[in-house]
Amino acid sequence: MEGPFLAVDWGTTNRRAWRVGADGAAEAEEQDGRGILSVAPGGFAAEAAAIRGRLGDLPMLCAGMAGSNRGWVETPYLPCPADLDALAGSVAWVEPGRTALLPGVAMRGDRPDVMRGEEVQLLGAVAAGLAPPDGLLCQPGTHCKWADMAGGRLAGFVTAMPGELFALLKAHSLLGAQLGGAVAPGPAFLEGVADSGADLLSRLFGIRAAALLGRRGDGDAASYASGLLIGTDVAARDVAGRDVHVLADPALGALYAAAISARGGRAYAVDSHAAFLAGIIALWRLL
Amino acid sequence: MEGPFLAVDWGTTNRRAWRVGADGAAEAEEQDGRGILSVAPGGFAAEAAAIRGRLGDLPMLCAGMAGSNRGWVETPYLPCPADLDALAGSVAWVEPGRTALLPGVAMRGDRPDVMRGEEVQLLGAVAAGLAPPDGLLCQPGTHCKWADMAGGRLAGFVTAMPGELFALLKAHSLLGAQLGGAVAPGPAFLEGVADSGADLLSRLFGIRAAALLGRRGDGDAASYASGLLIGTDVAARDVAGRDVHVLADPALGALYAAAISARGGRAYAVDSHAAFLAGIIALWRLL
Repeated sequence: MEGPFLAVDWGTTNRRAWRVGADGAAEAEEQDGRGILSVAPGGFAAEAAAIRGRLGDLPMLCAGMAGSNRGWVETPYLPCPADLDALAGSVAWVEPGRTALLPGVAMRGDRPDVMRGEEVQLLGAVAAGLAPPDGLLCQPGTHCKWADMAGGRLAGFVTAMPGELFALLKAHSLLGAQLGGAVAPGPAFLEGVADSGADLLSRLFGIRAAALLGRRGDGDAASYASGLLIGTDVAARDVAGRDVHVLADPALGALYAAAISARGGRAYAVDSHAAFLAGIIALWRLL
Repeated sequence: MEGPFLAVDWGTTNRRAWRVGADGAAEAEEQDGRGILSVAPGGFAAEAAAIRGRLGDLPMLCAGMAGSNRGWVETPYLPCPADLDALAGSVAWVEPGRTALLPGVAMRGDRPDVMRGEEVQLLGAVAAGLAPPDGLLCQPGTHCKWADMAGGRLAGFVTAMPGELFALLKAHSLLGAQLGGAVAPGPAFLEGVADSGADLLSRLFGIRAAALLGRRGDGDAASYASGLLIGTDVAARDVAGRDVHVLADPALGALYAAAISARGGRAYAVDSHAAFLAGIIALWRLL
């Protein structure tokens, strides 16, 4: 479709929305904590109306969890390899010509996996020339996606949960009191990366032992724990000698870049919001 | 020392106490949730008096977290290799001849680690002939200890936290709603063991993906998750072709035995309470 529209990246806990002009430029933007978990069942139409009230009364294309089984209308998972044409061909129109939800993508082989929303970033990054059409892309977060792109299509992916595990350990575990410090990609983080991998379950306990024995200050414990978790995630991928394009905010992206580098890979930062916009604008044109 | 006494295994969340007769037989026993976390600072003397009120006004020897920095009186960590003589030589007498706390054991090398209480079980198992003087012992639990015994002494150990991680995932994670089922060492558990190891962080997310894609019923998810976590713990030890003596209650011991067997080891069950009693009685005689 042509003309201006509203692009919404509707996550589990957060949401971003943009007004995109007829020329493809982002004219206005908002971001808030109105992810799907904060929207009551039946409340999505009112949320969409409120977004239109703020950003303009325009047609709307939503990516992400709005199409999940806890969202507005459930949309299917497309198989891999997936591309922009396939995504555009499977949108669900909540209101024809006015509000559409994108599908997700699934892996249904030996290692079942799912994504909703990340595929727009991934395919957008390639479409905009921010990442190569063949290669490994990484999207850190609560759940980190690692995507293999081939011929510009999303060929396969795997999801890990280092971010959620760090949050659980900090909020609820025996280690919680030690993990309140800032996380930075310095020596303690790299020590964690060096110790990461197959024995994560005992290296985590070592954080407590090191404190009891006076071996590491609690100011470094959070960075070390983050290094253990992100390092374990990176160690399970095949990054040595490879380029990895990382779509993340700068702080989290720097941690992944440090771990990828420590494991022998080369990390390149990609602006994840620019990638998302490039993807969803391309999808809108295909509808 | 000779004569009857009270033996206390004072854990973080649980506590067991026995009256041991002059002949070394357990004459009475109690078990409750009065671990150190439920005892207010300054409340330990009253707890000991209450135990004496129920089990008899006898001298008392306490193992475990009563000697920790959140316990009654802090006792030191002894280095490895450690034996019963060394433990007996480092008890702290709260009241001379009447109430004593045992020390813990620490590893201070490249992989710092600590234990408090498990060493009594380990050395007691060997002293009683329940486990060999040279070999690998395993104590599953919230924190699982793996101990190398050499010449009847505790030569080294490592602690992993699969149990705490399972509890965190069940209580607080995205997977929580799926993990309410019973855990049994059947096909789903063994599938988890087969998938366990270096990519734990993505295999855990796969539990959610498998449910969304209709690939595994939630009734099996808890067993599969337990298999992933225990399997990852076991995979990090050198069990292939080895005997492993497992000190645990029957349910948890059966899970570890299944994982050890799947990884090519031979698991033998040891009565952990009999091992503790053998150890603490031997220690009492050495005081």
